[in-house]
Amino acid sequence: MKIGWIGTGVMGAAMAGHLQNAGHELSVYNRTREKTAGLVAKGAQWAPSPAEVAAHSEIVFTIVGFPRDVEEVYLGKEGIFAAQGSCRIVVDMTTSTPSLAKTLEAAAQKRGMHSLDAPVSGGDIGAREATLAIMVGGRKAVFEEVLPLLEVFGSRISYMGEAGAGQHTKMANQILIAGTMVGVCESLLYAERQGLDQQAVIDIIGKGAAGSWSINNLGPRIVKGDYKSGFFVEHFVKDMGIALQEAAALNLSLPGLALVHQLYLAVKAHGYGRSATQALILALKALNGD
Amino acid sequence: MKIGWIGTGVMGAAMAGHLQNAGHELSVYNRTREKTAGLVAKGAQWAPSPAEVAAHSEIVFTIVGFPRDVEEVYLGKEGIFAAQGSCRIVVDMTTSTPSLAKTLEAAAQKRGMHSLDAPVSGGDIGAREATLAIMVGGRKAVFEEVLPLLEVFGSRISYMGEAGAGQHTKMANQILIAGTMVGVCESLLYAERQGLDQQAVIDIIGKGAAGSWSINNLGPRIVKGDYKSGFFVEHFVKDMGIALQEAAALNLSLPGLALVHQLYLAVKAHGYGRSATQALILALKALNGD
Repeated sequence: MKIGWIGTGVMGAAMAGHLQNAGHELSVYNRTREKTAGLVAKGAQWAPSPAEVAAHSEIVFTIVGFPRDVEEVYLGKEGIFAAQGSCRIVVDMTTSTPSLAKTLEAAAQKRGMHSLDAPVSGGDIGAREATLAIMVGGRKAVFEEVLPLLEVFGSRISYMGEAGAGQHTKMANQILIAGTMVGVCESLLYAERQGLDQQAVIDIIGKGAAGSWSINNLGPRIVKGDYKSGFFVEHFVKDMGIALQEAAALNLSLPGLALVHQLYLAVKAHGYGRSATQALILALKALNGD
Repeated sequence: MKIGWIGTGVMGAAMAGHLQNAGHELSVYNRTREKTAGLVAKGAQWAPSPAEVAAHSEIVFTIVGFPRDVEEVYLGKEGIFAAQGSCRIVVDMTTSTPSLAKTLEAAAQKRGMHSLDAPVSGGDIGAREATLAIMVGGRKAVFEEVLPLLEVFGSRISYMGEAGAGQHTKMANQILIAGTMVGVCESLLYAERQGLDQQAVIDIIGKGAAGSWSINNLGPRIVKGDYKSGFFVEHFVKDMGIALQEAAALNLSLPGLALVHQLYLAVKAHGYGRSATQALILALKALNGD
């Protein structure tokens, strides 16, 4: 199939590569062109704008940084919706706002197209190993049509409801991580201050009722002083900000999420925006005079 | 071996039962005598006080409710340390204060005895299936002597350091759970308010980077409206209170734990002290007008 791919960062490049390996013909665009080099070397066609990608594709996938980037890619002067051509379906995999997902679906429908919001979870490892979790919102029939393509890079794929439901599910995912991360970092800080062996603590508490992916995977990185591997703080701050806004729009108070968001703003303030989320412990240490 | 067992609640009765099945001779005491009936029916000897238990045992295990109960059982007029006899080792498995663990070790040594603090994790299921995690503080040689008995009801057993280190490790465990639980409950509340199918959300987010024992085991109980099965809110409030006190004694600020402690006080205030920890979502709903 002729597929367009916009956004070839660490995640996007790996995901698009799987589609390429599966035999699909790719048109690619990325703001920083060099990041498409790997895909182009394997036969992908570079396109100079999102509109040009869409003009050459039946389906376009996008995975970019922030909601404003999504807006630009879809609604900008050279955006996907400015294209002439045969593109029928667009799938945004960026973690973005549910309201923007609804806007894109409405804009797509006006053009006789369909839009899905399909944010992912699983990080660079999940993208590389094609084991991403994908949470999808939009029309069910469109989801079913796109599903075989999603299965090329995802291993757990759920249809969650109308446009925006994929993004809302991703927000639930990020709210869950927020609480878990403050637990992980405060727990390991407490252990260190009490003179315990942090790795021994992870080994015993990580397997029981306190256990989580985060304590077992990010905990050991804290022990080793690795604050680089993982999900960027600045993206997590963005996600929590969206979740808080969406909650506030429903008059929904989430005090835990609000606190963790504030703590991660402090992580950013300490210069760790491009560090991984386990850097939260560094801000907690700073709060405590270290 | 002649073993004493004090505290035959849901956890203690199951653990003592495993020792009995392994062929040990038990003396038992419990404030509410009826709760020893199952063990006595299988051959355990009822003793009218902790001192009497200790008088008939080489090793005494205790697992009671609150630190004040531990004090009574050990240091009271008819407590273990008032006993005459051959008791050499005491093991407190209650989740209690690290400072009390040190006091007990000092009191034990004065009497030529040894004390271990060995709180457990894994709940009623872990006690029944003999798969508890046990975190042990005290003298290493004493730990090694007692280890074969701990292995009768525990499957992951770690020596963590001097007296109090077992309790400190359990505090790290509870701090981790605190953060995780606020994530679980706020995430599922958000999902519900956004009209998502909560179980579908658990299914997709529980397996990835947001996953935890809590979302996968307690999340479905929330979906089913089961707020009874699990760990009592009032015990969790006690544990978080101890952790906060121990942290404050080191000038250690843990804002996440402090917030979750406050939220669980609200859970208690709503009358859910004897409900399970997933009842946190009920207090969050009340906070939001439900």
